[in-house]
Amino acid sequence: MSKIIKKSLLAPKSFPKLPNILGVNLYAMHAGIRKKNKLDTMLILISNSVNVACVVTNSKTPSAPVMWCKKIRNIGKARALLVNSGNANAHTGKEGIETVKNTVNAISKLFNFSKKEIYVCSTGVIGEKLDSKIITDAILKLDIKKNNSWKEIAESICTTDTFAKGAVSYFQYGGKKYKIIGIAKGSGMIYPNMGTMLSFIFTDFPLEKRLLTDLFKQSIEVSFNSITVDGDTSTSDTCILFSVPKKNNVKLVSNKNDKSVQKFTKALDKVSINLAKQIVADGEGAKKIISIKIKSAKTYKDAKTIALSIANSPLVKTAVAGEDPNWGRIIMAIGKSPVNIKQDLLSIKICGEKITKNGSLVKNYNEKVVATKMKSKEISIVVDLGIGNMEAAVWTCDLTHDYISINADYRS
Amino acid sequence: MSKIIKKSLLAPKSFPKLPNILGVNLYAMHAGIRKKNKLDTMLILISNSVNVACVVTNSKTPSAPVMWCKKIRNIGKARALLVNSGNANAHTGKEGIETVKNTVNAISKLFNFSKKEIYVCSTGVIGEKLDSKIITDAILKLDIKKNNSWKEIAESICTTDTFAKGAVSYFQYGGKKYKIIGIAKGSGMIYPNMGTMLSFIFTDFPLEKRLLTDLFKQSIEVSFNSITVDGDTSTSDTCILFSVPKKNNVKLVSNKNDKSVQKFTKALDKVSINLAKQIVADGEGAKKIISIKIKSAKTYKDAKTIALSIANSPLVKTAVAGEDPNWGRIIMAIGKSPVNIKQDLLSIKICGEKITKNGSLVKNYNEKVVATKMKSKEISIVVDLGIGNMEAAVWTCDLTHDYISINADYRS
Repeated sequence: MSKIIKKSLLAPKSFPKLPNILGVNLYAMHAGIRKKNKLDTMLILISNSVNVACVVTNSKTPSAPVMWCKKIRNIGKARALLVNSGNANAHTGKEGIETVKNTVNAISKLFNFSKKEIYVCSTGVIGEKLDSKIITDAILKLDIKKNNSWKEIAESICTTDTFAKGAVSYFQYGGKKYKIIGIAKGSGMIYPNMGTMLSFIFTDFPLEKRLLTDLFKQSIEVSFNSITVDGDTSTSDTCILFSVPKKNNVKLVSNKNDKSVQKFTKALDKVSINLAKQIVADGEGAKKIISIKIKSAKTYKDAKTIALSIANSPLVKTAVAGEDPNWGRIIMAIGKSPVNIKQDLLSIKICGEKITKNGSLVKNYNEKVVATKMKSKEISIVVDLGIGNMEAAVWTCDLTHDYISINADYRS
Repeated sequence: MSKIIKKSLLAPKSFPKLPNILGVNLYAMHAGIRKKNKLDTMLILISNSVNVACVVTNSKTPSAPVMWCKKIRNIGKARALLVNSGNANAHTGKEGIETVKNTVNAISKLFNFSKKEIYVCSTGVIGEKLDSKIITDAILKLDIKKNNSWKEIAESICTTDTFAKGAVSYFQYGGKKYKIIGIAKGSGMIYPNMGTMLSFIFTDFPLEKRLLTDLFKQSIEVSFNSITVDGDTSTSDTCILFSVPKKNNVKLVSNKNDKSVQKFTKALDKVSINLAKQIVADGEGAKKIISIKIKSAKTYKDAKTIALSIANSPLVKTAVAGEDPNWGRIIMAIGKSPVNIKQDLLSIKICGEKITKNGSLVKNYNEKVVATKMKSKEISIVVDLGIGNMEAAVWTCDLTHDYISINADYRS
């Protein structure tokens, strides 16, 4: 079987219209890491040194670019972002670190930027050497005056993704209109252990760097850290949020209680949740999106732990693929999580239909009704624990034959 | 697609020859829980009250029989074991607990046994009511003089298993010959959170009940708790070890330093590891057994955590299914575990071939050689962490199209 590259059934109809952000310049290239003329590298240059928040994978085997980002992120300033696809530059030893150094040095020299303001990400195959020269050569050939589109930028970072992912939201405050624009990539090796996969978000809202990081972490918790495709965590996950004010000398918002912050947070969550759900919609082999909500838990953490236990269960995911209301598997997945619950208070709904109540099946349960509703592309699972007042939501996709084909068969 | 029931490619050639244990009487029945005349219930009666060790699932949604076993196991005595397949009697509320009570009461009355010496297990569908009457009716019809075989007993507890699982080992001590006989069932919902699935082991070696439990827990740790099929933990997992001495008034071994204990432990591990590996060989859709060994770790727990992180990774399991030496996925799975490692000291072998060393690919690596070796039914992955002297081994199977067929397609 050849590698499946057809567009996910769950893809949005088209890439959204994303406006420019003043001072953010986009360049997409074919450096030659990937075959044919596929875009495989992107560079974003920012006119001024701006505040940045960067959150990376918790992996104990991080890639060389992740190690670099961890080193510079405390400074919290950015002028450039370089990303390549097709090679993760992970588990490449000292040579991998050299590659990052060489590209950073080249960009620093060429544009006269401080090295510590140049962010680098790589995504793709683990363990292969990445040649810095083909990337720096491609950058040297760039016509800096010609900007690429957000769509091309989003395409250049795709690997097994079947569609490019972008999102935008707007908000108004104090008579001014602000925007938040994000792109993301991800399809496999998706499990939230930070902000999963790659996502880069830009806003023209002016935020002080510490608050920027705090707000970004909060948003990641309910978006990129609330999705899973396969329970596997990439070595390369990186999320970066850039605050690029329209004017250079604008007053930065630094107080989390400032009235504008709530508006910003809401708009940011909208973009990050939108991108996170697009990643799930492009989950390898996905035919259905599953949203899982745990209600009436003692703590948010408890709710989320149980939600992820259900979301990561291959038996739940295959039941959804088979449009099978096999709710016993949900009971199993709740039970295998480390959270203490009261089995007698549990109730479960699938696609809005109540199935269990007080620890066993409801009396008038009609399996056929639920099975019919499960033919939908979006499946909701709601579990009420009945022991508190906290809740959490996560998203995943079903586990299908195409997942096996994509990950086992394609070399044969 | 219809449900796949063909025998696993990894099944042993035949069920082993298992001898009798004096005082252990075997009965297999068709009570009517499962269709046709399939054996679905078994009863084991023991001539005397014997010592017993019982370890059950850590699931927070345990079945009614598991709750019963937890209640009586501290007494540590057994006369009977009743097990049915086809219905797990899990998440069945008060009625499920009534069912257990009714069957226990019936056996207690019929054979004049203390209720607290009657162990009950159920395996099969979660959430369906289990009628105690069909089971007690079947027991009433038994001809107590006619014993069934171990093979029939092992068959009667199978659910999605494609073959019955049995094992035996012998040891000599003090001029006497002892035996350990075990049966097991399991194929899906297999993840060690105790002793996964069901397994019942009988020995004629006389052991004091506290030591029996300690030794059994140790053996479970390196056998049933060292396997995984899908990372999902059943609501019904139960392992029970019965010590049934040949003579009733024999002196029980109670000191763990007794020289006989080492011999017993070795023979017990042999049986439990054998049964555990048979469960993996019958993993839903399995075409390959994967053994994973982590060497040179700081602690046994660290080694096992990393081993299970690899064993539970769908990306590693699909790579093995595809006979693809995609070792980057092993790096990923090591990295996603919570254990701290030194990436630069890592080395990996697949099927005996060294692939990485000192944090990157070995120089003369020949992927074709490894790919050819991966055509074998048994795949070994050895990871050397280079930071300590402890090791752990776990076993799992690959993740194939048949897994999806078994768990998603069979209702359509």
